[in-house]
Amino acid sequence: MPSEEPPAERRPRLTPPIADVRRAVRAVLPDAAGPASDPPLVLVALSGGADSLALAAAVSFEAPRAGLRAGAVIVDHGLQDASAEVAAAAAGTARELGLDPVVVRRVEVTGEGGPEASARDARYAALDAIAAETGAALVLLGHTLDDQAETVLLGLARGSGSASLAGMPARSSRYARPLIGIRRATTRQACLDAGLAPWDDPHNADPAYTRVRVRERVLPVLEAELGPGIAEALARTAEQLREDEEAFTSQIDEFIEEVCEPAEAGIALSVGVLAANPAALRQRIIRHVVGSEFGVSLTRAQTLDVARLVTDWHGQGPLDLPGGVRATRAGRHVVFSTSGSTEVLPHDH
Amino acid sequence: MPSEEPPAERRPRLTPPIADVRRAVRAVLPDAAGPASDPPLVLVALSGGADSLALAAAVSFEAPRAGLRAGAVIVDHGLQDASAEVAAAAAGTARELGLDPVVVRRVEVTGEGGPEASARDARYAALDAIAAETGAALVLLGHTLDDQAETVLLGLARGSGSASLAGMPARSSRYARPLIGIRRATTRQACLDAGLAPWDDPHNADPAYTRVRVRERVLPVLEAELGPGIAEALARTAEQLREDEEAFTSQIDEFIEEVCEPAEAGIALSVGVLAANPAALRQRIIRHVVGSEFGVSLTRAQTLDVARLVTDWHGQGPLDLPGGVRATRAGRHVVFSTSGSTEVLPHDH
Repeated sequence: MPSEEPPAERRPRLTPPIADVRRAVRAVLPDAAGPASDPPLVLVALSGGADSLALAAAVSFEAPRAGLRAGAVIVDHGLQDASAEVAAAAAGTARELGLDPVVVRRVEVTGEGGPEASARDARYAALDAIAAETGAALVLLGHTLDDQAETVLLGLARGSGSASLAGMPARSSRYARPLIGIRRATTRQACLDAGLAPWDDPHNADPAYTRVRVRERVLPVLEAELGPGIAEALARTAEQLREDEEAFTSQIDEFIEEVCEPAEAGIALSVGVLAANPAALRQRIIRHVVGSEFGVSLTRAQTLDVARLVTDWHGQGPLDLPGGVRATRAGRHVVFSTSGSTEVLPHDH
Repeated sequence: MPSEEPPAERRPRLTPPIADVRRAVRAVLPDAAGPASDPPLVLVALSGGADSLALAAAVSFEAPRAGLRAGAVIVDHGLQDASAEVAAAAAGTARELGLDPVVVRRVEVTGEGGPEASARDARYAALDAIAAETGAALVLLGHTLDDQAETVLLGLARGSGSASLAGMPARSSRYARPLIGIRRATTRQACLDAGLAPWDDPHNADPAYTRVRVRERVLPVLEAELGPGIAEALARTAEQLREDEEAFTSQIDEFIEEVCEPAEAGIALSVGVLAANPAALRQRIIRHVVGSEFGVSLTRAQTLDVARLVTDWHGQGPLDLPGGVRATRAGRHVVFSTSGSTEVLPHDH
């Protein structure tokens, strides 16, 4: 029978790193309250690495005190020879920490969309499924401030403004990242202080991965040349740009009805409303409508071309966009249609 | 008597780099039309470096064709022994290019706020003064896409979201940066193609300057690890974040009246309006009001503390902010006052 806490001889001294991680966990646990099994269950996504191991230890301590059950999920990506053994070892540690249930799930990584994206898709599909099966109220992920900084730098290369620099959210549907404000060095020290031996994923040292190169080569150069504190600065920027993105999204939600009307084989946007809004909002409306109506993601250049049908109208012809989508200025509307359609006039023309 | 164009033997072949720079200049010259002397005057801010030299050459070609006069301003910062000679040489080249007037102005760089900021302040003060003296409609600056990318990376270290990553505007009051979408390599090649010898500022190779380290050490690492095109991606991100910032600014302008009311020794913000707005806007309103009312620039942490008087109100005491500013929740208002005041209740309490 699993005990609620590790035996006394394994119980760690409360060092500052352990306290930091526990405090961060304590801050998100109230989110697990609500309509769930009784007492509600929180799951830790555990790889066995220092971040998720420190998280698991803190959750095993804090959850009972917050009136919650705590379990662990270990996803075995099957990408390394010893992956089953690594997963089994992590599961053993989770049980020793008193977590229950402990679920190990083997997934297929297809490689579609690149090795990193494919592994991530498979991982979240498994986490979603296990959360549903176990009725978990919250799934905790071990991403740290360092992961966030790396994500921002990876986004720089995409060059799509706040959408690419907003990093990972601290909270999104059933997922929470309590350690997003904690440095990786803190989680590692918390493990050492607790007598826990983290597993070092060899992928984390493989420079074939862009993220590994960002960690090992880019961030150290930025720290050296721009000064320490760059990881914190990147994380702070991510937080603010995420808020910006959320503000624009809520503004678009507020008046998207007003600006759109159905047109033959497509949708029409009011020129007046587009013109009355600042460029940042106008361009987001255009991308949003083309994305939601046709499933097409416009580049900045394409979006600006469409915007010029409003802001720099001088009789341009229709614009051919990806996915067979065509944008046409027709009177006081910009009409989006699939090119198969014969007539693209809005209803008021 | 200065001729309108350089003598035929100096007139360059139209190579692609020269054409690119001219096209970029041609796009901004219409902005010089309007209420100005007749024909209007555009000034090139010329250092003698490749960027501003290529700009000067293109302006000398394009301005007469756009019905404009073109002159040059050379600011001598007096920071190097040979600075007067460098300025005189640049002035000579400007005259050879047919620019008129050519103004050389020596400025005092005080060093206040750091050497780079101080030199910049002195430079813009001189440009402002000369633009006013000559009645120039437009002052053209030679900043390139590479300068923009460097500015974004410098902003990363500040970590204040879009405000620190928005780079330099393509247009701002009487200033325009026609080359902001052109690579530095293009301006250098345009100079070579035109038989113009750019001056290489030794400061541009001095690693004591953060910007130089960003150029020589950071950007090459980013290119190597994240892929080529990173400079363009950074510039694209700057453009979008600038638009975002402008959208928030115009939204704040729209309803700042509605949300503010005078309070004793300060100003009061309506809790209802602050609560109804997304975090990105709420926090910008708080920073805007404290900045414009008291001249105090709040950090993100301070701004979030004030915001919690609205979003997480549980009877907190007053917050002491920099500059003797105090934020107090009083009923349905957040009141900002200077700490000297005895009573900080808004008028409706």
